[in-house]
Amino acid sequence: MNEGEQAQLKLTELGKHILDPILENKFPVIDVPDRNTSNIVYEAQRNRFVLGASKNIRDSSNINHIRSFTQLAWVASYSKQLLKASRTSSLRDLYYSSEAFGVSFKDQAESDRIVTDLESVTGLPRESFGIFPDEHSSIYGELIMRYTVPDYNGREIDLTISPDGLPIGPAIMTAEPVRTNAEIVLAVESGGMFSRLIETKAWQRFKAVLIQLGGQPPRATRSLIRTLHKELDLPVYLFTDGDPWGMHIARVIMSGSANSAHIDGLTTPEAKWIGVTPQDIEQYSLPTDKLNDADLKRLDELSRDVRYSDSEWQHHIEGFRRLRTKAEQQAFSRYGMDFVVDTYLSDKIA
Amino acid sequence: MNEGEQAQLKLTELGKHILDPILENKFPVIDVPDRNTSNIVYEAQRNRFVLGASKNIRDSSNINHIRSFTQLAWVASYSKQLLKASRTSSLRDLYYSSEAFGVSFKDQAESDRIVTDLESVTGLPRESFGIFPDEHSSIYGELIMRYTVPDYNGREIDLTISPDGLPIGPAIMTAEPVRTNAEIVLAVESGGMFSRLIETKAWQRFKAVLIQLGGQPPRATRSLIRTLHKELDLPVYLFTDGDPWGMHIARVIMSGSANSAHIDGLTTPEAKWIGVTPQDIEQYSLPTDKLNDADLKRLDELSRDVRYSDSEWQHHIEGFRRLRTKAEQQAFSRYGMDFVVDTYLSDKIA
Repeated sequence: MNEGEQAQLKLTELGKHILDPILENKFPVIDVPDRNTSNIVYEAQRNRFVLGASKNIRDSSNINHIRSFTQLAWVASYSKQLLKASRTSSLRDLYYSSEAFGVSFKDQAESDRIVTDLESVTGLPRESFGIFPDEHSSIYGELIMRYTVPDYNGREIDLTISPDGLPIGPAIMTAEPVRTNAEIVLAVESGGMFSRLIETKAWQRFKAVLIQLGGQPPRATRSLIRTLHKELDLPVYLFTDGDPWGMHIARVIMSGSANSAHIDGLTTPEAKWIGVTPQDIEQYSLPTDKLNDADLKRLDELSRDVRYSDSEWQHHIEGFRRLRTKAEQQAFSRYGMDFVVDTYLSDKIA
Repeated sequence: MNEGEQAQLKLTELGKHILDPILENKFPVIDVPDRNTSNIVYEAQRNRFVLGASKNIRDSSNINHIRSFTQLAWVASYSKQLLKASRTSSLRDLYYSSEAFGVSFKDQAESDRIVTDLESVTGLPRESFGIFPDEHSSIYGELIMRYTVPDYNGREIDLTISPDGLPIGPAIMTAEPVRTNAEIVLAVESGGMFSRLIETKAWQRFKAVLIQLGGQPPRATRSLIRTLHKELDLPVYLFTDGDPWGMHIARVIMSGSANSAHIDGLTTPEAKWIGVTPQDIEQYSLPTDKLNDADLKRLDELSRDVRYSDSEWQHHIEGFRRLRTKAEQQAFSRYGMDFVVDTYLSDKIA
């Protein structure tokens, strides 16, 4: 069963769950898994966040619940229409569309929250219902994928077709990997580094599918990384800036975020953060900036974060605290344009 | 002569301009057109900003000038290397690369400024030297372009190849339009609207090449819009949010910005802003938000801006002031997912 069919099925189940009581003259009730911090637990065995047993009840017989009950039912029905029409919608589109149906949201933050409710109830990411954020990241490499979106369904695309890379939009995110000559996935934080690795043919040299994360990547990108890892058995390397934020981009790709504790299929625990680590900053004498207050505060938060409880991650945090500096991945340019490929990545990937 | 050859030629001229005096035992001097507000003039005839006659002198015999003189010479030499190697660099990469050569910049703002000096001296945009920002916007439609970048040189690409669109990166920006079935260029502000127009096949219906601006678009995108307009003789329609910021995105594509007064080849004066205008907000009874203080302040600025001196633009400004509201382009979703294509854009483009 593909993702779209699974989403259809979940929506049908939810519909039945609402309709059946009504046909018996009863008020329908929906249980929404509780996403409050108190109910987010870290499952050490699976190395990721999950939701605990606590639920929020949306009881349609309760006047205080009727608003959020209706909103959730509407978001589900909107998703159903999207799937049926093979359409996609941005979160913002969904917000505005609600007015066409007389469903009222205070603001987009509220409709975004209800979309997350639907995710929690179904356990599926909003992308499987055709709902996407606006951000983009990109992909490039010797990989053939097969589109599943209408008009393009079954058509294969070679991900070296455009030397600018292809955006990881709805179509690539739902495409199926067919075959590849690549042996690794190399995900990088910045667009500049992504272009550099394409131009220098680092993707050939390392036999890598390149992914541009574009900062903290959208979930479509995290899901695609996992798919390439699982289905093509490719090891995943994450190359970010050498600061608490870059390190955390890597950690979220591996172990997920509290925000998406309610969804499966986003994490790649086996991925490796190859740097820039505090050790790299010293070893390669990289040009640095001082850690500012926000950076130091972030380190404090991360040091208490359950995802960083391993000694390896605590070691990185201590490294940053000791150096009190940070370095971007472009910092390797100080040794010339090819150093990052010829020396740094060669060291790290070998 | 293509853009790369032109850039090469300009750099060679600059090099000679520095070297010749040295060979005669004189100190070289570079004149950099002055980009201060006092020297930016609006050329009504060409409907754009240009620089006036004032110049800043960088005299290598003057100890106060030697730093910026050297920085400019280095940026020129870095650009020469990029062109020679058919490489590209982000502004950030350039900043870091300077350390490899012992050239010192206080921060990236300073190196960015020197890149703009090079643009001013040569009259060419930094993109023609292979220097790009990190932002991306995208393109989709029935248009064949021919790449000019290495490894892809001469290869043609059909811009309907990826249903997510193609990013307007270094490769597409320097590609040549070959042929098209399209009859217009339709540029839209948001990614959500861009996806909607692809999925609903609005691009077929309007025979449009679609461009996603991604907010105030990078110059590569403005340059591509102009190229499609000039070389394929396609009229250009601009569809943005209905607020001062959206309106100004359109105005900058038409008439340029003060920041790029020193560069030719970015403006498309014949482009049309089709909305969302204040009139549209009323006529289509769109859901709106109140204009906030920043919006109102922006309207004041624009009302005094020389690019808005026409009665048509003053009329739009007055419209916003009268309504005191704004509407995003997604606001049409209140009438259902197809309204924006079936009704609004049909009205506007016909």
